[in-house]
Amino acid sequence: MTLHAPYDASNIFAKIMAGDVPCAKIYEDDDVLSFMDAFPQTRGHCLVIPKAASRNILDTDPDVLARVITKVQKIAKGVEATLSPDGIVVTQFNGAPAGQTVFHLHFHIIPRYDGDKQKPHASGAMANMDDLLAIAEQIKQKLQD
Amino acid sequence: MTLHAPYDASNIFAKIMAGDVPCAKIYEDDDVLSFMDAFPQTRGHCLVIPKAASRNILDTDPDVLARVITKVQKIAKGVEATLSPDGIVVTQFNGAPAGQTVFHLHFHIIPRYDGDKQKPHASGAMANMDDLLAIAEQIKQKLQD
Repeated sequence: MTLHAPYDASNIFAKIMAGDVPCAKIYEDDDVLSFMDAFPQTRGHCLVIPKAASRNILDTDPDVLARVITKVQKIAKGVEATLSPDGIVVTQFNGAPAGQTVFHLHFHIIPRYDGDKQKPHASGAMANMDDLLAIAEQIKQKLQD
Repeated sequence: MTLHAPYDASNIFAKIMAGDVPCAKIYEDDDVLSFMDAFPQTRGHCLVIPKAASRNILDTDPDVLARVITKVQKIAKGVEATLSPDGIVVTQFNGAPAGQTVFHLHFHIIPRYDGDKQKPHASGAMANMDDLLAIAEQIKQKLQD
């Protein structure tokens, strides 16, 4: 079953962590990395991933998962302080039939704005890296306030 | 702003915790309650909520949040062992523009099956309580295995 497949280190997030693929980084500590989603569903869409290898929520160490979700909260607060969205979706997909496209555990933080249209997941054009870096910098500043 | 409104204890999950509204309970401990969603988007759709009062991810105590997500993992494993879905969506809505309809923090666990159609959130007919109780009982058994 796909949900129980072994971790495959050739995924793009492993490459981002290895520094082989660029990202618009928001936050990093010993446990997690947070960066802008390259295919944002709304303005400010970002991700939080554990540094430890796990494929999905089923094979993640519970202590790692606990540390990841508190960082999801931290980044969500930073996004809220930066972009003043009207709502925030936190979501996490396990397995391709659930919408997972990168098989390293990740939480999406998707700001929602009254009247916006949330684009479909992992679709459409890649965002402009300079735009993503600019938003990431703003959120980073708010985290330090 | 809605995201920062105070907690309102008249919400339906507070009533479920008070025993004033029935639910198909899967799991309960000092920190969390898990039960079947009354408007399931797929077969096996269930919820995990903290007992502590919080409106959304912004006003939740980080320690509470950490304990909630480890129970989300536990219940997701139970759902997977019971229903053998092909994927699992974990999602959490903050604010009405993000899709939140009950203003007590909650995580959705939504099993996905190859070729299924996930019904829209909080819509359509209420599920039959006997059906929900039967699924809840099966998941509960798996948690004890």
